[in-house]
Amino acid sequence: MNASNTLLPNWLARCAENFPRHLAIQSGEVRWSFAEMDYQVTRLARQLATAGVREGNRVALLAANGLPYVVTIHALTRLGAILVPLNTRLTFEELGWQIRAIHASHLLSDTFYERSATDLVQAIPELIQGTLQVELESNNVVLKGSDEDLNTPLHTLIDLSTIQAIIYTSGTTGKPKGVIITYGMQWWNAIGSALNLGHHHDDCWLACLPLFHIGGLSILFRSVIYGISVILHEKFDAAAVNLAIWEDHATIISVVAVMLQRMLDGSESQGRYPSTLRCVLLGGGPAPRPLLEDCVARAIPVVQTYGLTEACSQAVTLPPADALHKLGSAGRPLPQVQLRIINEDRPAASGEPGTIYLKGPSITPGYADRPEATMEAIRDGWLYTGDIGYLDEEGYLYVLDRRSDLIISGGENIYPAEIESVLLTHPDVAEAGVCGQPDAQWGQVPIAFVHLHADHNISPEALLAHAAQHLARYKIPRTIYIVDRLPRNSSSKLLRCKLPWLVSPP
Amino acid sequence: MNASNTLLPNWLARCAENFPRHLAIQSGEVRWSFAEMDYQVTRLARQLATAGVREGNRVALLAANGLPYVVTIHALTRLGAILVPLNTRLTFEELGWQIRAIHASHLLSDTFYERSATDLVQAIPELIQGTLQVELESNNVVLKGSDEDLNTPLHTLIDLSTIQAIIYTSGTTGKPKGVIITYGMQWWNAIGSALNLGHHHDDCWLACLPLFHIGGLSILFRSVIYGISVILHEKFDAAAVNLAIWEDHATIISVVAVMLQRMLDGSESQGRYPSTLRCVLLGGGPAPRPLLEDCVARAIPVVQTYGLTEACSQAVTLPPADALHKLGSAGRPLPQVQLRIINEDRPAASGEPGTIYLKGPSITPGYADRPEATMEAIRDGWLYTGDIGYLDEEGYLYVLDRRSDLIISGGENIYPAEIESVLLTHPDVAEAGVCGQPDAQWGQVPIAFVHLHADHNISPEALLAHAAQHLARYKIPRTIYIVDRLPRNSSSKLLRCKLPWLVSPP
Repeated sequence: MNASNTLLPNWLARCAENFPRHLAIQSGEVRWSFAEMDYQVTRLARQLATAGVREGNRVALLAANGLPYVVTIHALTRLGAILVPLNTRLTFEELGWQIRAIHASHLLSDTFYERSATDLVQAIPELIQGTLQVELESNNVVLKGSDEDLNTPLHTLIDLSTIQAIIYTSGTTGKPKGVIITYGMQWWNAIGSALNLGHHHDDCWLACLPLFHIGGLSILFRSVIYGISVILHEKFDAAAVNLAIWEDHATIISVVAVMLQRMLDGSESQGRYPSTLRCVLLGGGPAPRPLLEDCVARAIPVVQTYGLTEACSQAVTLPPADALHKLGSAGRPLPQVQLRIINEDRPAASGEPGTIYLKGPSITPGYADRPEATMEAIRDGWLYTGDIGYLDEEGYLYVLDRRSDLIISGGENIYPAEIESVLLTHPDVAEAGVCGQPDAQWGQVPIAFVHLHADHNISPEALLAHAAQHLARYKIPRTIYIVDRLPRNSSSKLLRCKLPWLVSPP
Repeated sequence: MNASNTLLPNWLARCAENFPRHLAIQSGEVRWSFAEMDYQVTRLARQLATAGVREGNRVALLAANGLPYVVTIHALTRLGAILVPLNTRLTFEELGWQIRAIHASHLLSDTFYERSATDLVQAIPELIQGTLQVELESNNVVLKGSDEDLNTPLHTLIDLSTIQAIIYTSGTTGKPKGVIITYGMQWWNAIGSALNLGHHHDDCWLACLPLFHIGGLSILFRSVIYGISVILHEKFDAAAVNLAIWEDHATIISVVAVMLQRMLDGSESQGRYPSTLRCVLLGGGPAPRPLLEDCVARAIPVVQTYGLTEACSQAVTLPPADALHKLGSAGRPLPQVQLRIINEDRPAASGEPGTIYLKGPSITPGYADRPEATMEAIRDGWLYTGDIGYLDEEGYLYVLDRRSDLIISGGENIYPAEIESVLLTHPDVAEAGVCGQPDAQWGQVPIAFVHLHADHNISPEALLAHAAQHLARYKIPRTIYIVDRLPRNSSSKLLRCKLPWLVSPP
């Protein structure tokens, strides 16, 4: 009765057996069935074996969203090798640091990142192998210049306890940490999501988030666990996303708030979104209330979620039936997740903010090669997220902010998201960001940055007056700056930590 | 990364939190939301605690399909006690044997079986506790004459490795064996079924199979794992089932062939079944082809399945998309199940019949207190089912025959050895052999052949009366033939497969 080695038949292989002709993925002009994808994955796995990729190897991947990325991910599973996805927006120095720190054995790239990869390999003698380039050639994904090793024993089973990927987290202070993602985490996350959102055989999930982040990667695993189609976009483009919804009938999409806003801005003339779109999964931090209200008005089935790399994406998601009457909530923990809000070492009461702790089989066992960081973050299986939120009387989570963003002013806690959402209610404001500024008297004071709608014009003073109408005195920004754009990461998530540079450039 | 103790938040409690007002169950005139069901379950758990039910206790339950049954099942989960469901069709003698053999600590019954339960308790001094009666009183399920122990610590988590139930099945030889059903088996089975059939929030699963069999019991667990409604019928009644489909919009029903035939017979005048009925899950042995063709002609979404107690119901199920072009197939193993066909100690080729072996987290770890039977049935995690089948070129299973000698009559499993051993207790009987005879209504019925001791004489009628004293009604042979000798092989082993020739010689 020991379930520590739960073994499941390989997910993609099962899809190829059960639904061989069902659309697995659409990327650009290419449409592959599960049978075709399985064929491509099997061949690439054998080519990678020829090139020396072995079970347990940590294989770094520097590539754009595309078929080479997808086939590589599943090919590594067949070999029992571990994926280390690299954020393509990092500097050469940052990439080099990550590849070395994680003791990667190989560096794979696609055609687009060939040059960077070659340079990295020259700079990192620790890599066993020179650049391995996975390319799309006449609709086939192949390892450049490599033959298949037909004798390679490929894994036909997936052991849920083994490591699928190590993903570096971004946006924290100090050096990045590699979050361990097991196959069990992918499985449990996919199942929890399906129990919440429903599982329809004709679902088609649109992936326009980077595959090097968990939000994008987990879509690929849901596809092979459920046996559903994926439409993969190279990057987020509001017009292309809208087209995929109207023309290709994407049924579920994963987005962050700024993407959704751009989709709405770009589709006003098109009327209602088609009813085939059954779920807009909105993650990446607290969403501005005006955006949510706009979605309600336009009958867009938006479902907020609170996710993080350590939870293999979604941990808490709003049940679709609650989307309207729990506007602004991230919802309820998925079936496999336990959640606690702790304030000053005791469970917080309803409505009382505290730190969010998570536990369950979709939560990471820790950080690769970082026992002390693991011990600090995970105690008795409970992950300390550092994020702040509260539960309402019915147990629905409202995420207030990320702890690192917390502004403490004169002993009062200030959550930037709260101020931002007030600024966003002003008709002239398109985007808003708030951070803390050191202050001799109060410790910190909030300052704000706003980006106005095109052709709109308003003075900072008028905006301050607007803020003063809605916020307690200590929460009113000391200054409001009107700027051309706000700093965002590759997932379009607002980087509050970079806001100060808008005031005092380095 | 050890998953041996995967803990999940209690399934029913989560439903009560997430969908408090959603219909959990409809039984007769009573309709309970998940919040109401959770309330009823919590109270009964506390009453059972007062009555002495403790974690790890094996609690036998003799009850008809109804709310007391359902609430008891979930209440035992809250206490960590183990359910031992009793087949209400068994004789007093058979019931007594099972209760003693499994070392039950308590016997619970509903009002309907109060008398039998009282008699059983008097006859079984090993039981810790006198009869405990769970009754439905003004739409409340309560333990008769018991108070709640409000201090009882109830389990809020479910450990997938612990035992939920022990369900008796008869063996080929000798006495019945208790199949261990863990919570993990229920979970994985429910998830595998949802991945195959889809998971729709508005599903409503009609349960008209006995809850003491895995086919009925597993529906109750799917309900709380998915958060969907169940319509519970006290027993199968074709007209009532048809009404539930037309009026109450049941979307999925689990039936065996004889039930489906009666449903069709009773609905000919009503035209097509409504499109809300999205799945008729057909188990309980190979289905007659004319029945399947009739379903196709009437556009009934029938999905065949091959299940067994040891697999926590479904192990192999036809994907709905294949229902038409794979008519007669039991389909493909569910995602968590591995399947092998072994013929003469080697894997069978496509089309070649052999014994069906199953492995995976929804397969039983063994038989309670029967290490030798467990070792015989399960090797290296592979369950020897004894059933015969083959895979076609695309890997679809066709079940040819259940365990060579198993008789399936109206969905009930009948084991010849059990009937033979009753016949052999009669002083006039020297040898006995039992086999199944095709029957238009039930699929099969048992018939028996006996050879009398020299100089003894007894009529078939008198032997039938003897059988009726010791056997559940459905196990009583349709006919008993008195013969000169029984077919045996050179080792004198009874050849049950040759018994039919005694009736209709070639």
